[in-house]
Amino acid sequence: MSLESFFTPRSVAIVGASRTKGKVGYEVVSAMLRAGYEGKLFAVNPSTDEVQGLKCYPDLKSIGESPELVVVVVAAKHVKSVIQDCADLRVKAAIIISSGFKEAGSQGAQLEQEIVRIARSAGMRIIGPNCIGVMCPTSKLNASFGGQLPKAGKVGYFSQSGSILAAMVDMAGATDIGFSKLVSIGNKADVNEMDVMRALGEDDNTKVIAGYLETISDGDAFIRQAERISRIKPILLLKSGVTEAGARAATSHTGRLAESENAYECVFERAGVVRCPSIKAQFDYARAFAYDPVPTGPRVAVIANAGGAGIMATDAIEREGLKLASFTEQTLQKLCNAKELAGVANVDNPIDLLGDALANRYEFALHAALDDPNVDTVLVLLSPHAMTEVLETAKAVVRVAKEKDEKPVLTCFLGASRIYEASEILRKGRIPQYDSPESAVGTIKVMAHYSQWRSRPKRVVKLFSVNRHKAERIIERRLRQNVLELGEAETKEILEAYGFVTPRGEIATTVEQAVNIANYIGYPVVLKIWSPDIIHKTDIGGVKTDLRTDQEVMDAFDLMMYRIPKKAPDADIIGISVEEMVDKGREVILGMNRDPRFGPLMMFGMGGRLVEVLEDVVFYPAPLTAAEAKEMLVRTKTYDLLSGARGEEGVDIDVIAEGLQRLSQLVTEFPQIKEIDINPYVVGREGTTPIAVDAMMTLEKA
Amino acid sequence: MSLESFFTPRSVAIVGASRTKGKVGYEVVSAMLRAGYEGKLFAVNPSTDEVQGLKCYPDLKSIGESPELVVVVVAAKHVKSVIQDCADLRVKAAIIISSGFKEAGSQGAQLEQEIVRIARSAGMRIIGPNCIGVMCPTSKLNASFGGQLPKAGKVGYFSQSGSILAAMVDMAGATDIGFSKLVSIGNKADVNEMDVMRALGEDDNTKVIAGYLETISDGDAFIRQAERISRIKPILLLKSGVTEAGARAATSHTGRLAESENAYECVFERAGVVRCPSIKAQFDYARAFAYDPVPTGPRVAVIANAGGAGIMATDAIEREGLKLASFTEQTLQKLCNAKELAGVANVDNPIDLLGDALANRYEFALHAALDDPNVDTVLVLLSPHAMTEVLETAKAVVRVAKEKDEKPVLTCFLGASRIYEASEILRKGRIPQYDSPESAVGTIKVMAHYSQWRSRPKRVVKLFSVNRHKAERIIERRLRQNVLELGEAETKEILEAYGFVTPRGEIATTVEQAVNIANYIGYPVVLKIWSPDIIHKTDIGGVKTDLRTDQEVMDAFDLMMYRIPKKAPDADIIGISVEEMVDKGREVILGMNRDPRFGPLMMFGMGGRLVEVLEDVVFYPAPLTAAEAKEMLVRTKTYDLLSGARGEEGVDIDVIAEGLQRLSQLVTEFPQIKEIDINPYVVGREGTTPIAVDAMMTLEKA
Repeated sequence: MSLESFFTPRSVAIVGASRTKGKVGYEVVSAMLRAGYEGKLFAVNPSTDEVQGLKCYPDLKSIGESPELVVVVVAAKHVKSVIQDCADLRVKAAIIISSGFKEAGSQGAQLEQEIVRIARSAGMRIIGPNCIGVMCPTSKLNASFGGQLPKAGKVGYFSQSGSILAAMVDMAGATDIGFSKLVSIGNKADVNEMDVMRALGEDDNTKVIAGYLETISDGDAFIRQAERISRIKPILLLKSGVTEAGARAATSHTGRLAESENAYECVFERAGVVRCPSIKAQFDYARAFAYDPVPTGPRVAVIANAGGAGIMATDAIEREGLKLASFTEQTLQKLCNAKELAGVANVDNPIDLLGDALANRYEFALHAALDDPNVDTVLVLLSPHAMTEVLETAKAVVRVAKEKDEKPVLTCFLGASRIYEASEILRKGRIPQYDSPESAVGTIKVMAHYSQWRSRPKRVVKLFSVNRHKAERIIERRLRQNVLELGEAETKEILEAYGFVTPRGEIATTVEQAVNIANYIGYPVVLKIWSPDIIHKTDIGGVKTDLRTDQEVMDAFDLMMYRIPKKAPDADIIGISVEEMVDKGREVILGMNRDPRFGPLMMFGMGGRLVEVLEDVVFYPAPLTAAEAKEMLVRTKTYDLLSGARGEEGVDIDVIAEGLQRLSQLVTEFPQIKEIDINPYVVGREGTTPIAVDAMMTLEKA
Repeated sequence: MSLESFFTPRSVAIVGASRTKGKVGYEVVSAMLRAGYEGKLFAVNPSTDEVQGLKCYPDLKSIGESPELVVVVVAAKHVKSVIQDCADLRVKAAIIISSGFKEAGSQGAQLEQEIVRIARSAGMRIIGPNCIGVMCPTSKLNASFGGQLPKAGKVGYFSQSGSILAAMVDMAGATDIGFSKLVSIGNKADVNEMDVMRALGEDDNTKVIAGYLETISDGDAFIRQAERISRIKPILLLKSGVTEAGARAATSHTGRLAESENAYECVFERAGVVRCPSIKAQFDYARAFAYDPVPTGPRVAVIANAGGAGIMATDAIEREGLKLASFTEQTLQKLCNAKELAGVANVDNPIDLLGDALANRYEFALHAALDDPNVDTVLVLLSPHAMTEVLETAKAVVRVAKEKDEKPVLTCFLGASRIYEASEILRKGRIPQYDSPESAVGTIKVMAHYSQWRSRPKRVVKLFSVNRHKAERIIERRLRQNVLELGEAETKEILEAYGFVTPRGEIATTVEQAVNIANYIGYPVVLKIWSPDIIHKTDIGGVKTDLRTDQEVMDAFDLMMYRIPKKAPDADIIGISVEEMVDKGREVILGMNRDPRFGPLMMFGMGGRLVEVLEDVVFYPAPLTAAEAKEMLVRTKTYDLLSGARGEEGVDIDVIAEGLQRLSQLVTEFPQIKEIDINPYVVGREGTTPIAVDAMMTLEKA
């Protein structure tokens, strides 16, 4: 159901309107009046006749008509009956500003649920409770106590924290950000971040979606919807509570589980969501996305009138992984021959126009840079020297950028009072202006990354032909038996059903058998205790590797058979597996952890001690496409070890990626699998088959 | 010689004073007049009688007295004769603003040298050329064209880029930063960054030194002096041109060599210099250092009136490696029982005073946090809610912080117009106020790190008793022979002289000898070709490892003797070294690279492929103390592998540190050593002796 009634209602009633300045019921009425709301506005309060010049009704039903939007600011205990009145009147939308619900304990949570039930059965949508309200500059609606209605613009904003929203609105007033709609989502009893994102995604007045979140209501829906919306317009999210300590702070605050930073990172990456490290960064990004087209590549041209800022910008470009554009021969010629630039120190990127540069030099250089096919974005830096034409330069930048509007132009005019008027010109000319080269470059980086994300080909998840029934049989049987940890034997059976290869070998129950198998396979071999009840074999001496002679096999066999029943008296021991020793190749780990919020997150890491110490692992939400699986490998720190880039013998990257895709298919088809690890997964050079040497999994009941 | 004449001269002459607005000679006169300079001011210009109301002299000598400071703004070609006049008149200090010197090419560089020669022989100091001048608010001196004289304060600033200085001054006007002195050092012909840092270090009006640098003039002096000054007051440096691309940009700009980011990082760390990632960060840091005491530890208390900002601050505290303070039982009791805080959601850190918090809640909580012995720094966050007493809260913070001034208090009042007046109050009350929780926390991190650095014990470099003469003999002989690359044989001889142990072994010249030596040492053994002329043995098949039988030794010996003379026909082959195979232990690398600017930088890294791929190496300037050597180990990413923290068998950390110290002594005593690598250096568990398995070095002529 659309949220339009929250933003452009024909009539609004404020229940709990108050005559007392400072009370929320006063502030909301006052905000509506000051905003100049043009629809019908009703005040409701049984204990007075008039509030700020508005006639006051004792209750909603006495109004005599049904308001489209109701704003509720009465005490928590009265809210339910107000919502019941709304339901009876077929009100379409209610904003519950009142607090005292879920955030206040279990009683409040129950009350909140009851209210949502009433609303849902009446087909009414609710924003809040425990929020500061909704603003919509274009319809002159300020149904909030979040401060003055900001100016209209292209940014749609939502926030789980009312105070952050209020601070954003106040800060926006001092900058060049305008808003299409602002929503304080509060406890998200009914309308949550996903509903708002969807509405803003469909809103023609919104070019950029930005928000502040502490928790995500439905991880699965988030991934799917955010990915869909990100293809249309950028979503800039400030997500707090991502560190462990931050999560504890968020928990004591919101009473919810917080998610790991890893999970957010890969989910945002998948969905194309731009993660903002701070409020400041969110402002920086929002401005550029609202004003500029996104760049089609990473190549930046820098124009400056002094060395210092140009060097800083160049440092930042390198650090952010962008590229300093190489001008074409034609551009270099043009710059060299220009009479405007005669005597200029450096025409190569960064172009240094020197301290005595007047506006005409900037104008010429900006034209040239924008015309160059090797340039994706232009950053114009200005330091206010004695003779700098600050104002004229700003006008020139606006003029040229408007004429050649296919590439983004950003500015960093350094200073304060000396650039004040110029920054007004830039603002009105819709040129995003930054206070430091670093924040401008950081913004370009984010835009370029988003643009690259958006131009990715459509995601196609390959389906391998597998023996799904076999896996299902094992999993279902174990779940019925209430056995949730599956050891090597069963996990490998399931993996084999999904096309994985495990080491050659057989189960021996006598020492003679073991020696025979070993001789059949060929030395060296590995002995492993084989029992569905022993998950951590190594811990109890249940693995012996690199056995090279019959004698060594016999010794190992007898020692295990003697010792293990003592250490694990209840274990049902099937025998001892004699396996080929897989030692030619590199060890990696494939795995999956099911995140409580985002579902299965695939994991890839380098094997052995490396993984443990360096935490060189990469996560990505399943199901994986081939490109995503490969990208996971590339993003490890030690990828060069795999790819053979450093003179090492490389391994077959594609087969590892295929392993990840097969595992991704397994965990997608079986939500009962909570965790699975193939460790080590031994991979050799191109053309060889990787081997799942050890593996285990954990199940969970639906 | 003191720089006092630049800052508090009794008289100033401006040579090149001009009547034409926009000209530098006009701007400087105007700046001096507007600043209200109270000493004697002379204008010099042969072509006019009067400039802006000042009598104008045809030349310096006609003034009739000797000005203490001369500001030169004439064209480059006239500067030399002006400086000669200054020398004749015994002028103490000259600021040469004019450009057209070293930055303009070799002719300019020569002119610059001549001018410095004149000045030095007359005992005169010069700032510039190619600079924008000097400002000193306390003496109302603005001998510059860098804009209006900023207000007086505790920050001493210098800049290699005039435009960055001008931008800083302009930006400072809009914030709460005041300056003691500002110096544009330009080409640094005479006075360089070190001189200015020394002067600011001794200046009682300067509490914080901040600067912008593109190049460092004398690396050695920089380390020593900066370290000395950092113990007295913090030095905040913005160093640009640190990435490769940035360095290229800086080079084309200043025509100088740029240094690697690694070198800067370790030199700054050693010298206690705070590295600023951006202008914005430099402002952020300078403000806190200027106003607040430094914290004595990493524990931060956070006070907020909303969840959102508190969570963001907590995230930032965890990310920066600081600690969220754990309040004492007493503090918790005090907060719980306070009538001011009745009903408050959360008294544990971060303290959430809720949206309806008035100033009295903040006042009570701030007192309690500052009283808590577990708290080192307090961060006060405020979101402007409808009923928030923004102004009163600011006043309360100022009041409490003044009363309890031993711990730093920082604020982040979010918003703009709604907190405008409050931020004025905070500014006047000398409370550093930030625009985001992240920048406040980033600043606390930097202060805590500096404080920790300053409280380090005095550096004592241990001197080992070594056979210096032996090392000297080899090095001198090779230098005389013009041989600069020393192979394994000679490098190990030198290392042995400095107390390193190398693998047991001997040189064999016949295959029989080789087998005898191998049997004497015990298998497995390693064979290495032994020749002073073969540096990279492995490249030509000159190393065979893990030989386990006589036959393998014989085969390896004969193959080397057959093949290597073909591959290296000119090499003088002494024989083949038969060595014990050192394979019990972990491989690490000890090394040194002599940085052209900062001298010997010690290097420690994890051995094998790890180093190459992960670049897990740490640098630190020699000579090393025991603590610094150990710190180098701790700072590798894979330190846990060494220390045994992850269930691995640990190695003897102290002996590795001692190896680094011995190597540090070697390279300090022999500046002829340009590079040295011990790779691998094999270290075992505690009590065992590490072994330098392979090593090589490069010499350079003095």
